[in-house]
Amino acid sequence: MDIEGLILDVDGVISRGRKPIERAIEGYRLLRDAGIKTVFVSNNSARSRRMMVEKFSGYGMDVDEAEIIVATHATAVFIRERDGKSRVYTTGEHGLVEELENEGHEVVEGLDADYLVAASNRNINFEIFTKALRLALNDEVKYVAVNPDRIFPGEDGPVPGTGLVIGAVYWMTGREPDAVVGKPSRVIVEQAVQMLGVERDRIAIVGDQIEIDVLAGKNSGLKTVLVLSGVTTRDNYEKKVNEAGLTPDFVFGDLYDFAQRVISRK
Amino acid sequence: MDIEGLILDVDGVISRGRKPIERAIEGYRLLRDAGIKTVFVSNNSARSRRMMVEKFSGYGMDVDEAEIIVATHATAVFIRERDGKSRVYTTGEHGLVEELENEGHEVVEGLDADYLVAASNRNINFEIFTKALRLALNDEVKYVAVNPDRIFPGEDGPVPGTGLVIGAVYWMTGREPDAVVGKPSRVIVEQAVQMLGVERDRIAIVGDQIEIDVLAGKNSGLKTVLVLSGVTTRDNYEKKVNEAGLTPDFVFGDLYDFAQRVISRK
Repeated sequence: MDIEGLILDVDGVISRGRKPIERAIEGYRLLRDAGIKTVFVSNNSARSRRMMVEKFSGYGMDVDEAEIIVATHATAVFIRERDGKSRVYTTGEHGLVEELENEGHEVVEGLDADYLVAASNRNINFEIFTKALRLALNDEVKYVAVNPDRIFPGEDGPVPGTGLVIGAVYWMTGREPDAVVGKPSRVIVEQAVQMLGVERDRIAIVGDQIEIDVLAGKNSGLKTVLVLSGVTTRDNYEKKVNEAGLTPDFVFGDLYDFAQRVISRK
Repeated sequence: MDIEGLILDVDGVISRGRKPIERAIEGYRLLRDAGIKTVFVSNNSARSRRMMVEKFSGYGMDVDEAEIIVATHATAVFIRERDGKSRVYTTGEHGLVEELENEGHEVVEGLDADYLVAASNRNINFEIFTKALRLALNDEVKYVAVNPDRIFPGEDGPVPGTGLVIGAVYWMTGREPDAVVGKPSRVIVEQAVQMLGVERDRIAIVGDQIEIDVLAGKNSGLKTVLVLSGVTTRDNYEKKVNEAGLTPDFVFGDLYDFAQRVISRK
């Protein structure tokens, strides 16, 4: 494994819900000390990069905003690169609004939007769905989803992901997003590849979900590393591989085990 | 038209939103005075029959609960006839809860339900969607939708119908309702046919939507009457007929025009 750059998933790799995975944080330090470039890529649709820096800081990790790509920020960048500063209506939360505004977009409350941005929201309500419905019915409004996550593993069971909004809008209008930003879409992974500035064949993507992280890596021609510290476990690994029809290039118990292997080969 | 019994839609036939259609109310009186039996059948997922009686009373119409079938009540009856008194979790509103409880069901707040009942709700929130998601993931929980309405024509534009919930659950879990109660399903129409106690070939269904009311009539072998006082108008009639691939047996401007014709033939 001749690795110079790593694209690291966050939930299921560095943390589970709000709790850090201590061994993984130790593994992250080993990788950094060995001079491996890293960028965190998260499909999170609620947090800004600033919020992620705070989260990492709380785990004793010193990570800069420039080493983090969250789907919230990646969506804001995607819209700006495509159409410049735009008027955006989003079903999402404050962290997403923050990233949209940081990128120069005007976040509007009414139907005068150029873009509808679908994202999950713990404060979602009927009025938000009504606006999303009316915007989706307007062919002139472009429609982007922050990520394709249907269900998110919450602390006491599954909770709705962005699929809550994508599904409702699809059923009511027949319309699916024109583009999806989060993994396994190439949109967010290519932003990460550019940020690393390393040759593609020296980059590995590390994540806990085969149909998201491993698929994202295959879509972008990267080495794929599955860690069994999140959604995929030793018990369900075979089943998940069969369901996805995809096999990761490497499988490790957690990020620490992976880091040990990388360092031993250097 | 040899008609003895009528199945009448409410929204778009008797009223538009909260406003009565005065000519239609006059037409309803003519039909009643001529001895025609009537039953109102509404896909409304938020009102109980008691609430419908109040609505009609506000229009100066004297209609008994026994002459009204609302999808809320029809759902409660459907579940009782299938499985007896059950534990039901619903995403819906107070009027639906009222009808479920009237029929002897226990409306539960937790995941200990036998039935998940999908219905629109102006106070829907993330917690309700989370519970619906977790129940739908449990194969032992039966899943019924009050109606299949994707979008409802609100006073200032389209608003989400039950499709808001059906679509979200479908996208997140891959599961669609085991049964749908409201029109064009036979479930609710057959309840109305039984209630009228008239031979099927002497019953007409009157409504404003081809893909709902006319289709419901065809599904149950009834005469079909479209009125142009609601969603379907003189301007979009041809388009709607082509979209639905269905032609109503009769078309009238409103319920008054229809009543005049029925009476003139008697």
